[in-house]
Amino acid sequence: MHPLKGKHDPRSRVFADLTQDEYTQVQRYMERQKDLDISTKQNTLPSENFLFMIDLSVPNKAAVLAYLDGKGPKPERQATVVVFFGKRGYIKEYLVGPLPQPTYHRDVTQERYQMDLPISKRLVTVGEYNLLFSFMLKEVFNKIGVIVEESFGEKCCDGFEQMPRGVRSGDRTTWMSFFRSMDGMYVHPVGFEVQFNHQSLNMSQWSVERVFYNGHYFDSVDHLVTAYNEGKVPKIVYKPTPDYASLKPRSKPLQVGPLQFNLEGSRYSVDNNHVLYLDWSFAFGLSSASGMRVFDVRFKGERIVYELSVQEAMSVYGSVTPGMIVTKFLDASIGIGRFAHELTRGVDCPYQATYVDTYRYIDVDQPIRFRNSICIFEHNMGQPLRRHFADFYHHSYGGMVNSALVVRTITAIGNYDYMWDFIFYQSGSVEAKVHATGYISSSYLVNGSLRHGHQVAENVLGNIHTHFINFKVDLDIVGVKNVFQTKDMEFVNVSLPWMPEHYAMVPHLVENQLNTEQEAALRYDTKTPRYLHIASPKTNRWGHQRSYRLQVVSFTGEHLPESQPEEKSMSWARYKVAITKHKDLERTSSSLYSQNDMWSPAVDFSKYIADNESIENEDLVAWITTGFLHIPHAEDIPNTVTVGNGGGVVLRPHNYFDEDPSINSADGVSIIPG
Amino acid sequence: MHPLKGKHDPRSRVFADLTQDEYTQVQRYMERQKDLDISTKQNTLPSENFLFMIDLSVPNKAAVLAYLDGKGPKPERQATVVVFFGKRGYIKEYLVGPLPQPTYHRDVTQERYQMDLPISKRLVTVGEYNLLFSFMLKEVFNKIGVIVEESFGEKCCDGFEQMPRGVRSGDRTTWMSFFRSMDGMYVHPVGFEVQFNHQSLNMSQWSVERVFYNGHYFDSVDHLVTAYNEGKVPKIVYKPTPDYASLKPRSKPLQVGPLQFNLEGSRYSVDNNHVLYLDWSFAFGLSSASGMRVFDVRFKGERIVYELSVQEAMSVYGSVTPGMIVTKFLDASIGIGRFAHELTRGVDCPYQATYVDTYRYIDVDQPIRFRNSICIFEHNMGQPLRRHFADFYHHSYGGMVNSALVVRTITAIGNYDYMWDFIFYQSGSVEAKVHATGYISSSYLVNGSLRHGHQVAENVLGNIHTHFINFKVDLDIVGVKNVFQTKDMEFVNVSLPWMPEHYAMVPHLVENQLNTEQEAALRYDTKTPRYLHIASPKTNRWGHQRSYRLQVVSFTGEHLPESQPEEKSMSWARYKVAITKHKDLERTSSSLYSQNDMWSPAVDFSKYIADNESIENEDLVAWITTGFLHIPHAEDIPNTVTVGNGGGVVLRPHNYFDEDPSINSADGVSIIPG
Ligand SMILES: [Ca+2]
Ligand SMILES: [Ca+2]
Ligand SMILES: [Ca+2]
Ligand SMILES: [Ca+2]
Ligand SMILES: [Cu+2]
Ligand SMILES: [Cu+2]
Repeated sequence: MHPLKGKHDPRSRVFADLTQDEYTQVQRYMERQKDLDISTKQNTLPSENFLFMIDLSVPNKAAVLAYLDGKGPKPERQATVVVFFGKRGYIKEYLVGPLPQPTYHRDVTQERYQMDLPISKRLVTVGEYNLLFSFMLKEVFNKIGVIVEESFGEKCCDGFEQMPRGVRSGDRTTWMSFFRSMDGMYVHPVGFEVQFNHQSLNMSQWSVERVFYNGHYFDSVDHLVTAYNEGKVPKIVYKPTPDYASLKPRSKPLQVGPLQFNLEGSRYSVDNNHVLYLDWSFAFGLSSASGMRVFDVRFKGERIVYELSVQEAMSVYGSVTPGMIVTKFLDASIGIGRFAHELTRGVDCPYQATYVDTYRYIDVDQPIRFRNSICIFEHNMGQPLRRHFADFYHHSYGGMVNSALVVRTITAIGNYDYMWDFIFYQSGSVEAKVHATGYISSSYLVNGSLRHGHQVAENVLGNIHTHFINFKVDLDIVGVKNVFQTKDMEFVNVSLPWMPEHYAMVPHLVENQLNTEQEAALRYDTKTPRYLHIASPKTNRWGHQRSYRLQVVSFTGEHLPESQPEEKSMSWARYKVAITKHKDLERTSSSLYSQNDMWSPAVDFSKYIADNESIENEDLVAWITTGFLHIPHAEDIPNTVTVGNGGGVVLRPHNYFDEDPSINSADGVSIIPG
Repeated sequence: MHPLKGKHDPRSRVFADLTQDEYTQVQRYMERQKDLDISTKQNTLPSENFLFMIDLSVPNKAAVLAYLDGKGPKPERQATVVVFFGKRGYIKEYLVGPLPQPTYHRDVTQERYQMDLPISKRLVTVGEYNLLFSFMLKEVFNKIGVIVEESFGEKCCDGFEQMPRGVRSGDRTTWMSFFRSMDGMYVHPVGFEVQFNHQSLNMSQWSVERVFYNGHYFDSVDHLVTAYNEGKVPKIVYKPTPDYASLKPRSKPLQVGPLQFNLEGSRYSVDNNHVLYLDWSFAFGLSSASGMRVFDVRFKGERIVYELSVQEAMSVYGSVTPGMIVTKFLDASIGIGRFAHELTRGVDCPYQATYVDTYRYIDVDQPIRFRNSICIFEHNMGQPLRRHFADFYHHSYGGMVNSALVVRTITAIGNYDYMWDFIFYQSGSVEAKVHATGYISSSYLVNGSLRHGHQVAENVLGNIHTHFINFKVDLDIVGVKNVFQTKDMEFVNVSLPWMPEHYAMVPHLVENQLNTEQEAALRYDTKTPRYLHIASPKTNRWGHQRSYRLQVVSFTGEHLPESQPEEKSMSWARYKVAITKHKDLERTSSSLYSQNDMWSPAVDFSKYIADNESIENEDLVAWITTGFLHIPHAEDIPNTVTVGNGGGVVLRPHNYFDEDPSINSADGVSIIPG
C-alpha cells in the first residue's frame, strides 16, 4: 500500500541542474569558439581568458509555466557561462544553447546587469590564488623566517582572506590574516596580517601594501623585520597551542542515541530532480552560486510555490584588527551551492535519508561530482501535528504525528557551515530554515579587541558579527495574479451591546492591501503588521481570499547603515520582507560579482523596488531576510552549535484551503472510548 | 556501556508532587478539623465549605538549597490546601504538614496574597456547574423547545462559558454560548447565548440576565419566545450540519511513517521525579494549577536552573457576540496542570517514550490518577548539533547529531490543547517551548462578525485572539547571586588605522548591566537589547562573566491596554522579559483566583516590580512572555496545527563554560581522510 499520489513529471527536468555530459558539451563548445580565446585550464592566469563557471540557465517563467501547464513547447535548455576575459579586461555572461549540443552563444551581460562587468569585479580563481600564495611566500614568508620561528611556531601559517578587498571600485587589496595550520585554523590566529595589492592582472605589479603584527602596522615587510630586530615592536612569543579546535571526539562511542527508521519503506520518491511526497510534489536543484532551490511546488497537484531559493548569506564583522574591521562577506559572490559537499550519514542527515549527487562546474577544468551532497528524508518530528483530547461532554481523542519531508544541503564556505532545510508539512506549510555551525571567524587579541567581542581562547577574540540570509519566495497562489495583504489586530473601544454605558477595548482584525513595491518593502527597523500574505483575488469556500502567510523567524542584528558605500551590495537586508513584481531579469537579490565590487555592485536589490511598480494583481515575489546577531562566546569553540543559531520563514496556508488538509492524511489517529 | 553519569538523588523528592497516599492523608486530616466544617464531596454546594484542591507546597528556596547542597536538614513536606468556605464567604489557603501524617494546618492566605479572598473569587466547581446546568435546563431550555427544534436541531446544545464573568469585582454573571453537541462542539456554535447571574451562593437567587439569539438581545427567555413566536426576530433555520470538526481519519492507515527507536536502550533514567540524561539531571513535577515544571536542573552536577515552570496561558478574544466580546481566559485560574491527560503513544510522544503517571486532587472527592500524563524521551532531531567540513588547507570532517531529551505534557483546557516541552540539549542549552493545537473558539456569524476574524465554516466565525504564555525561569548561575546583563551591537564610525582619512561604520559590542527591577522590565512594545543574560560575577577561563542567555522566540499580538481594569490580572504580559529579585512569596505570576476577579486579582505581577528593588548580585528570577497572535482561518478546522503556532525561550550558555561542552559527548564523529 504505497501512499505515493501522483506521478513524477518529467517536465520538471526544465529545472534540473546540468548533467556531467551537458557541462562537458558546453565546455567543449566554448573551447571551439576560437575568437573568444578561452582557456579552461584550472590554472589559467588572471591575464588570460578563463571559463569560470557553467550553470543551468532556468528559462523565463512564462515559457516554463506554459510548458508545465501543457500550453507551450518545451523551452530550450540553456546554460549560463561566465568567462573572465583577462586579456580584454571584462567579464561576460553568455547564454549557451541548445543543450545538450550547443550551437549558439549570446552575450547577456548587459541585459542581465545593465552594466559592463569590468574584470576587477571577478572572483579570485584558483589560478589567481596560486599566484597569490607564491607571491606571499616569496615577498613575505621568505623574509620573516626568524619572526615565524620565534612568534608563530612551526605550524605557521594558513591565510584566510578578508573582504571586501579595499574601499572603492577597482580595489583589489586584500587583507590576509594568518592562522596556525591546525584543525579549525579559523580560531587559531597568530597575530599577523598582510595586505596584498593584486589589482593588476600581471603579478609583476603586485605588492605588499601593509603589514600588521601584534597590533602594530608597517608599510612593508622590511619595516617589520627591522622593527622586530631592533626590538621596536612588542614580540609575540610562540608557545605551543592546545588543539582546542579539533573536532576529534574525546570519548569513545558509547550507547547509540535514538535512530529513525522507515519500517515500511520511504513514503517519498525521488526521480532525477523531482520529488513526490504524500500530497506534495516539487523539483529541486542547486545553483553553484546561490545554493539550494525548489521549483513548481505543488500540493495535490496545485502549484503553490514557483520558486523557493537561497539568495545570499551575508555577514558584517566588527574588529580592531585590519582585515576584519571592514569584513563584509557576501557568500553568494564566492558561491554558496559550490560548497555543498558530501553529507555525513547519521550526523548531517539520518542514516536512511536519500542522498543525491550533484555535478558542478565552477573554477575547475572539468565538471566535478559531489557525492551525497543533497539529502532528502521524511522525519518524525516527535510531536503531534495536531491533536485534541476531549473530556468535556464528549470523550474522545484525535491526533496525528508530525512527519514531514526535509530537503537539505550544508554548505561549508570557509569557516562557516550553513545548513539549509526546506521542509514540507502535511498541513500544507513549507518551511525554509537556515542554521549556522562550523567555526567562527576570529582575530588575534590586541588592544581594543574586547570592544568587538569576547575572548574565546588564549589570545583569541571571537568577533561580533551579523548573519543576514535572504530567501526568494515566488508564491503563485491560484495562478500568478496575486496581491500582498497584511493582517493584524487593533484594540477598539466599544460599548457592550447589553450594557451600552460600559466600554471595553476589543480586538479587531485590521486588513490592508499594499499596492506598490515601496509600500510593501517592510524595513527591519520599523514596526510591521504581524501577518503578511500573498493572496489570490479568488476566494475559498467561506468567501475569503485564498492566501499563504509568510511567517518570518528572525533574530537579526543591525543592518549596515545605508550611508556606507558597501551597503548597496546588500540592500535586500534592509527589509524583513520586500515584495516585487516578478521579472525574469530580477532573478537574484545578489550576484557573483558583488563581493569584489561592493561599491558598484552588479545587483543592487533596492533598484528592484526603486521604480515602485504596482503589485496589485501581479506576479509577486517575496524576498525574505532572516538571520541572527552573533556575539561569539566560549561555547563557540570548537564549533558554533545549531541550537538557537538560525532563522527562516514558514509559508502557511491561510484560507487557501477550506479546511486543514492534514485531516485527509492516512496518519490520523482517533480513539473513541467503547 | 551505559552512558549514565551521576546518580539519582533522592533529595529531589523535595519537589515531588504528592503521592496518592499523601493526598488522602491531607484530605483525611482536613476532614478531621471539625471546626472547619469542610465537605470533600464532589457535589458540595457553593453555599457549603468545600475542600477544592490539595497540591504540593514547595518549601522555601533557602531551605531547599541548604538541603540539596548538604548544608541543612530535609525541609518539612507540606501541602497547600484550598478551601472554599461557602458558609463563611471566603476562600482560605492552608499549609498542611508534615506529610505524610499531617498534624497542623496554618492559614497562609494573607501571607500569600496580602488580601482576604472573598468567596466570589473562587473557581466554579463541579458542584456549582451541576446547579448551573439544572438551572439552565429549567429556566432556559425547558421554555424554548420550539426554538430548539426549529433553530438548533436535535444536537442542541452544549454550553461553553465565556470569562470573565462580568465587568467588576463580585460579578458572577456568565455568558454561556451554546454549541451543537458534536465532536469539536467549539466550532459548532448555534447562535444562542445566555447570561446567567449565579453570584449568590444560593441558587434560588440565580437569574437569567440576558438572552442573545441570532444577533439580537432579549431581557429574558420569555421575551425571546414572544418575539420568536411573533416573528419579530429573524429566525435561525436548523439544517443538519456536516461533521466537519470530527477528527476521525478519513482514510485508512497506509504505510507507516518514520519511527524512532532506542536500539541500545534509552540513555536516560527516570527515578520517581528525578531524571538523569547524559550530563543533565533534574527533578520534575506538575502543579494542578500552573502546570509543568522542573527544578534543580544541573549540568555535570552544577546547578543552572533552580526552577523552570509554566505560569500562565492567557488569551484575549475579539467578537461582536456578547460572550466573546469580553472574553479573556486565564488558564492557570482554571488549572493548567489539572488537564494534563493521558498522552497517546506514537502521536503525542514517540512510542518508546517513558510515560509517567501523575496524581492530582482538584475539584474531586479523592485523588485521581492520570495515566501516562507526562512523557520523557530522547529525540534525534534529524540534524547536526554542530559540524564542520574542511576542504581549505585541511581535509576533515567533525560533527555530532542533535539528540536531546524532551519532557512533555499536553494540557487540554476546553477547546485548546497546549503542548509544553522542556528540552535538554547536549550543548548545555535548555529550551521551554509551547505549541497550541486543538479547537479554536468560535462564534455564530452575525452582522459585524467579520471585523473580528474569518469565517471558517457555515455560519461560523473563527475569532481573532491572542495567546500569551508566561514562564518562570529561576536561573542560578554559579550560585544565587547574579546580575542581569544585556548585550547588543552598535555601529560606530571609525577611522581605518592604515588609512586614517577613511572612515567606516564598524560593529561594536555594547554591554550593559540593569540594576533595578524597573530597568529590567522589558516591555513588548519597546525596542530591547538583543541579548539578555543572567550572569554571575564569577568569570570563565577567558575572564568573561559566566552567564546564560535568554533567547525568546515570540510572535505575540497586542497586549490588552493597561487602561482596562482586567489588565492587572495579566500584567506580566506587558513584558517580554522581566527580572525580579527572588522571593518565596512571589512564586507565581498568576493565581487560581485571577479569572473570577480580574479587577482585583489575587496576584498582580506588576506589584513584584513596583518596589523597584535592586537586582544587583541578588537571586534573580526571569519571567518570560511568549505567544502568538491567532487570526483563525479555514485551516484551523478541524484543529489548529502546531507548525508555526508556538513560542518559547532557549536558555543558552554564554561564556558559562570555557568551550562547548558537547565536544565531550560520545556522540561526536570525526572523519579524517587516510
Ligand atoms: Ca520593480
Ligand atoms: Ca508569484
Ligand atoms: Ca520586587
Ligand atoms: Ca536565581
Ligand atoms: Cu556567526
Ligand atoms: Cu488560538
